[in-house]
Amino acid sequence: MTKDLAALAARVQRLEDERAVAAVIAAYGPLADQGDAAAVARLWTEVGTYEVVGFATARGRDAIAALIEGPTHRALMADGCAHLLGPVAVTVEGDAATAVGHSVVFRHDAARFVVERVSANRWQMVRTAEGWRVAARVNALLDGQAAARALLALPPG
Amino acid sequence: MTKDLAALAARVQRLEDERAVAAVIAAYGPLADQGDAAAVARLWTEVGTYEVVGFATARGRDAIAALIEGPTHRALMADGCAHLLGPVAVTVEGDAATAVGHSVVFRHDAARFVVERVSANRWQMVRTAEGWRVAARVNALLDGQAAARALLALPPG
Amino acid sequence: MTKDLAALAARVQRLEDERAVAAVIAAYGPLADQGDAAAVARLWTEVGTYEVVGFATARGRDAIAALIEGPTHRALMADGCAHLLGPVAVTVEGDAATAVGHSVVFRHDAARFVVERVSANRWQMVRTAEGWRVAARVNALLDGQAAARALLALPPG
Repeated sequence: MTKDLAALAARVQRLEDERAVAAVIAAYGPLADQGDAAAVARLWTEVGTYEVVGFATARGRDAIAALIEGPTHRALMADGCAHLLGPVAVTVEGDAATAVGHSVVFRHDAARFVVERVSANRWQMVRTAEGWRVAARVNALLDGQAAARALLALPPG
Repeated sequence: MTKDLAALAARVQRLEDERAVAAVIAAYGPLADQGDAAAVARLWTEVGTYEVVGFATARGRDAIAALIEGPTHRALMADGCAHLLGPVAVTVEGDAATAVGHSVVFRHDAARFVVERVSANRWQMVRTAEGWRVAARVNALLDGQAAARALLALPPG
Repeated sequence: MTKDLAALAARVQRLEDERAVAAVIAAYGPLADQGDAAAVARLWTEVGTYEVVGFATARGRDAIAALIEGPTHRALMADGCAHLLGPVAVTVEGDAATAVGHSVVFRHDAARFVVERVSANRWQMVRTAEGWRVAARVNALLDGQAAARALLALPPG
C-alpha cells in the first residue's frame, strides 16, 4: 500500500469508528423500547457499567439486562415508551472514544404522551474484538443538578 | 484500480450509503413541517408505501402527497408542528437497507407545546437511479401495543 | 497521487465535511446546557450571527456568549434544561454548507419536564482555518408562523 493510500485509509477508518460509536448509541433506544434485554446488555463490554447518578450503578451485562427485565422498565413498556437519544458529540482516540449527548424518555399516559425523563449522558466506549462497546455510561437527570451538567463537557479535539 | 484501492473504495461506498439513507430520513421532518407534499412524496419510490398501523396505508407518491395535503396535517401545520426523527439504526445490504428509529410530533397548543405522537418506525429503503428511496415505511404509536415494539427489532449485522 | 486515488479522496473529504458540520451542531446542545458560553461562541465565526425571529439577533462571539451568560438562559439551567437538536439535513458546497433541522428545549418544572420551545433552524456554515464554523443561525418558534416553516426549505442537491 502506498503512503498516500495508507493516509486515506486512516481517514476512512476514523469515519468508520465515529459511525460505529454513534450506531451503538442509536441502537440503545430501539433495543430498550422493545425490551430486548440480552441485546441491550451486549452493547456493553462484559464488565461495562451503567450508572444513573443518585440511583444505582449496574456492573456487567447481567446487571444491565436486569434493568431492562425489571419492573420499572416493564411498566414503562406496558404503558408505551420511547427512549430517544439525540445527536451525540463523538471523539475517537485510538481504541477509545467518548460520546456526549441527551436522552429523553417519553411515556404514554392516559391517551397522551408525557416527557418522563430528560438526562445528560456520557459514554466511554472501547474497541473490542466484537466491535465498539460501552465501557461506561453515566446518566443524570437534567433537573438542575450540577452533576448532570458536568457530564456534558466535551473532550478536547 | 489496484486491489487495495478497490477495497478502500468499497468501504467509502458503504459510508456513503449509510449517510444517504440517514439523509433521506433526516429530510422527512423538515419537508413535512413546511408542507412540501411533492418533495415528501419524492422521498419514496413510485410505488412506495407508508403504513400507519391501525389507521391506513398510503400506496404510491400521490397517496403519500395527499397525507401532507390533507386536513389533519394542514391543521397540525396551522397550529405549529415539528416532526422530530431521532437517530436511526441503519443496516445496508447491497441495494437495500433497513432503518429503525423513533419519530416524535410536537404540536403548539394554546401558547405551549405538547407531545402529540410518539412512534416506532421501520424503513425499508432501496437504491434507485435517483438515489436511495423509501420502499416502505411502517409507523406505529408507542402506546403499549406490541406491534409498535416489533418494528424496532434491529436486523442482524 | 493517481487519478483514482484523488477521486476517492474527494469522496472522503465530502464525508468528513458533512460529518464536521453535523458535529458542530451536535456540540451546541451539550455546550449550551452546561453553560459554557465561550465554547458556544467559538462554534460561530468571529462575525457570526444568531437570529431568533421576532426576538433579536446576536452578532459576533461576545453577543452570542452573552445569550448563554444572560438571565434567561441561567434561569433555564438552574431549573434544568436540555437543548435537543434533531437530525440535520446537511448540504455541503465547497467551503460553505447549509444545515436544516429542529431544536427542542425541555425544562424541568416542579418535578416534571415540559416542552419549553420547539423551533425550526437554518444554519449557514463556512470552512475556516479553525474548521467548520457557524456564519449564521436563524431560529424560529414552530408556533404556526410561516417564517418558521420557511427556514426548513432544503437547498437543492
